Amino acid sequence: ESSNISDAANIIQQDLSPPEAAHILESCPQKVRHLLWGLVNEEDQGEVLTHLNEDIQQQFLEEMSAEEIVETTQEIDNDDLADILQQMPTEASHRVLQLMPSEERSQVEGLLAFPEDTAGGLMTNRMVNIRGDVTIEAVLRYLRKKKLPKSLDVLWVVDRTQHYQGSLALTELLQSPPEAIISEIMDTSIKAIECTLHEDKVAQIFERDDLVSAPVVDADNILIGRITIDDVVDVIRDSADHNMMRLAGLDEESDTFAPILKSSQQRAVWLGINMATAFVAAAVMSRFEASIAQIVALAVLSPVVASMGGIAGSQTLTLMIRGMATGHISRANLSWIVLREMGVAVINGALWASVIAGITVAWYGQWSLALVIAAAILVNICIAVLSGTLLPFILKSARIDPALSGSVILTTLTDVFGFLTFLGLATVYLL
Amino acid sequence: ESSNISDAANIIQQDLSPPEAAHILESCPQKVRHLLWGLVNEEDQGEVLTHLNEDIQQQFLEEMSAEEIVETTQEIDNDDLADILQQMPTEASHRVLQLMPSEERSQVEGLLAFPEDTAGGLMTNRMVNIRGDVTIEAVLRYLRKKKLPKSLDVLWVVDRTQHYQGSLALTELLQSPPEAIISEIMDTSIKAIECTLHEDKVAQIFERDDLVSAPVVDADNILIGRITIDDVVDVIRDSADHNMMRLAGLDEESDTFAPILKSSQQRAVWLGINMATAFVAAAVMSRFEASIAQIVALAVLSPVVASMGGIAGSQTLTLMIRGMATGHISRANLSWIVLREMGVAVINGALWASVIAGITVAWYGQWSLALVIAAAILVNICIAVLSGTLLPFILKSARIDPALSGSVILTTLTDVFGFLTFLGLATVYLL
Repeated sequence: ESSNISDAANIIQQDLSPPEAAHILESCPQKVRHLLWGLVNEEDQGEVLTHLNEDIQQQFLEEMSAEEIVETTQEIDNDDLADILQQMPTEASHRVLQLMPSEERSQVEGLLAFPEDTAGGLMTNRMVNIRGDVTIEAVLRYLRKKKLPKSLDVLWVVDRTQHYQGSLALTELLQSPPEAIISEIMDTSIKAIECTLHEDKVAQIFERDDLVSAPVVDADNILIGRITIDDVVDVIRDSADHNMMRLAGLDEESDTFAPILKSSQQRAVWLGINMATAFVAAAVMSRFEASIAQIVALAVLSPVVASMGGIAGSQTLTLMIRGMATGHISRANLSWIVLREMGVAVINGALWASVIAGITVAWYGQWSLALVIAAAILVNICIAVLSGTLLPFILKSARIDPALSGSVILTTLTDVFGFLTFLGLATVYLL
Repeated sequence: ESSNISDAANIIQQDLSPPEAAHILESCPQKVRHLLWGLVNEEDQGEVLTHLNEDIQQQFLEEMSAEEIVETTQEIDNDDLADILQQMPTEASHRVLQLMPSEERSQVEGLLAFPEDTAGGLMTNRMVNIRGDVTIEAVLRYLRKKKLPKSLDVLWVVDRTQHYQGSLALTELLQSPPEAIISEIMDTSIKAIECTLHEDKVAQIFERDDLVSAPVVDADNILIGRITIDDVVDVIRDSADHNMMRLAGLDEESDTFAPILKSSQQRAVWLGINMATAFVAAAVMSRFEASIAQIVALAVLSPVVASMGGIAGSQTLTLMIRGMATGHISRANLSWIVLREMGVAVINGALWASVIAGITVAWYGQWSLALVIAAAILVNICIAVLSGTLLPFILKSARIDPALSGSVILTTLTDVFGFLTFLGLATVYLL
């Protein structure tokens, strides 16, 4: 194993870009990870840190002194640094800020004022703006002396008082006559994003309009920053992952390679909640123990009723959560969506109720049992779909994460109503 | 309602960008959608088409003649056009191609040669390359005469025979002295992507290296195209959505607003498959009808055992599918992951087995029943987690989508083993 590690060390130091090194660190068990981190070139450590997932990043930071953190992060973008500091305990981040050069510190503090999940939290405030009343020639002269960000495609145009006016593509800059006035050739189609906008909405705008960068303004339309696509890509990946992980009760930042005990704790909570709901359903079933003792087939068929409802409900819930994430489903078309989903529920409920009735007749030879299970299936699928459609909206209005809570509540509902309708109808009509 | 529609028409024609119009069309029921499509300005229809999801796009295209399609799409990028043609029936796309101007046609046909889900399928072949052996001044002169893509941040540098050599940022172009030679100042850190690389890998590279655009080469390192971040963002969104939707048995392209009958069909298949698996589990349970008739508590507690396994398994499955999508989990660290997940399973299995045993004693007052259910829970959680870890790998090797099939197979396993261990142990030890 030690030769593996020295191989890895060689690779990390010589051949890997910082993002690649971060990816490898994330894919290692914790012990190996700490070993390898010590082997990353010191001048690369800052860049590597920004590419690590938050859990792992904070583990490394906890082991560093404030002086070491300032040293390590001096080369990274100030929006990345702000993100890192935002994750740290307030006291620790405060110590780091106090050790920083005053100009940089005030820039970073400016960014820290914005909540992490807004446009302000995504932006960098290091940018190059040009005035609308100057010529192309003047801009070219001005740019030659500035330190420019690596991947720049457009410049923002402002007036004398820093109000956002429009954009000028670098290609336009290269192709326009030197005497042209910026405000006459600038593009006004890119609208500025307000700094308070939620990051999910920012991502929707970038996706919809195929943007590479966008200007950020405050409430007075004064240009205060710039958002670039690389940070938006992280938002898109996280929000899509977030919903999938939450549907399974997982934390999307939960490190796949966290220590066993930490992972166990995170997942135990979810298992516990589900155990509670399973016992609620069991309690409902136990009300009908007398019926089950007489017709054992009821015990065998109950899980089928519950499971059909669960599947139908989780399909609807997933569609709703995705539609809400992409912005296709909102209060405006909710009533239409409910009608539509109920249509699907009735068709599929009727179809599978008949099939299951047929199987029940073939299996147990009892028409009455078949009718009871068919009715229960139809009712349960309709309840499941109705809940799957409305729950995400109700939860969202109550500021509860629909993906996380929706699936537990839905399973509880479909289990309880599945057992209740099937065993209830059976008790009334079969005994 | 008709006044609503004329309002909508006004909005669509005057105030909306094509991506916004596409978003609204996607969010409408089918009838309204067709009405609104007729109201979109003709010169915008091509752009709107490229932003629609494939299902809806093809619905509109089916109603257009080949001539109309050529007319409508003449302004859109050739990679977008290739994507549209790739979705159409071969005969129809052939008719469209034959009506196109020959130069454009050969460009589009060049793109159609690549499978849709590879780097070649993502790229555009309309790009601006520069030679390494010329000066900045010559490049500036050359660029002034070219038609440049809208959001360009870097130029690709090639040698005489079109082999990829490196990149030159537009900012570099603006800041370098006119007499500098390109090959001496170009950046060689952006590696070219081979045209056969799968789109998911392309997305991983863009995410990891924060790229805005990347060069695509053929097997001989000859530059053949350019991939831009806007197309990669779609891949990222789709692949994340894909996994979430597939876990619920949904097609990620399935239009939330498709006609009820079409949606019912798509979801019926999944309900049918799940019904079959529910009956497999029911069949296992029915083997123990004699035991259940004697101890009805077994019927009440069986679903609890199955559901705990189901939850533990689906958590592991979700983590694995996500880890495989981000590239963090591969064959290289699989054995370590299995050990780790089994550790989590044993800890959580033991924990919840004890809790459930306690609840069972409190409820039924039988220590022996409590011991049996505890053993069954522990065994089922371990089986669930082991299956959740290994299944995605086995399915992927067999070229089956782990997200789609994984969740059905896993539920079947946890139900069957849940009933089998619990009812089996009960039959042996309690009767």
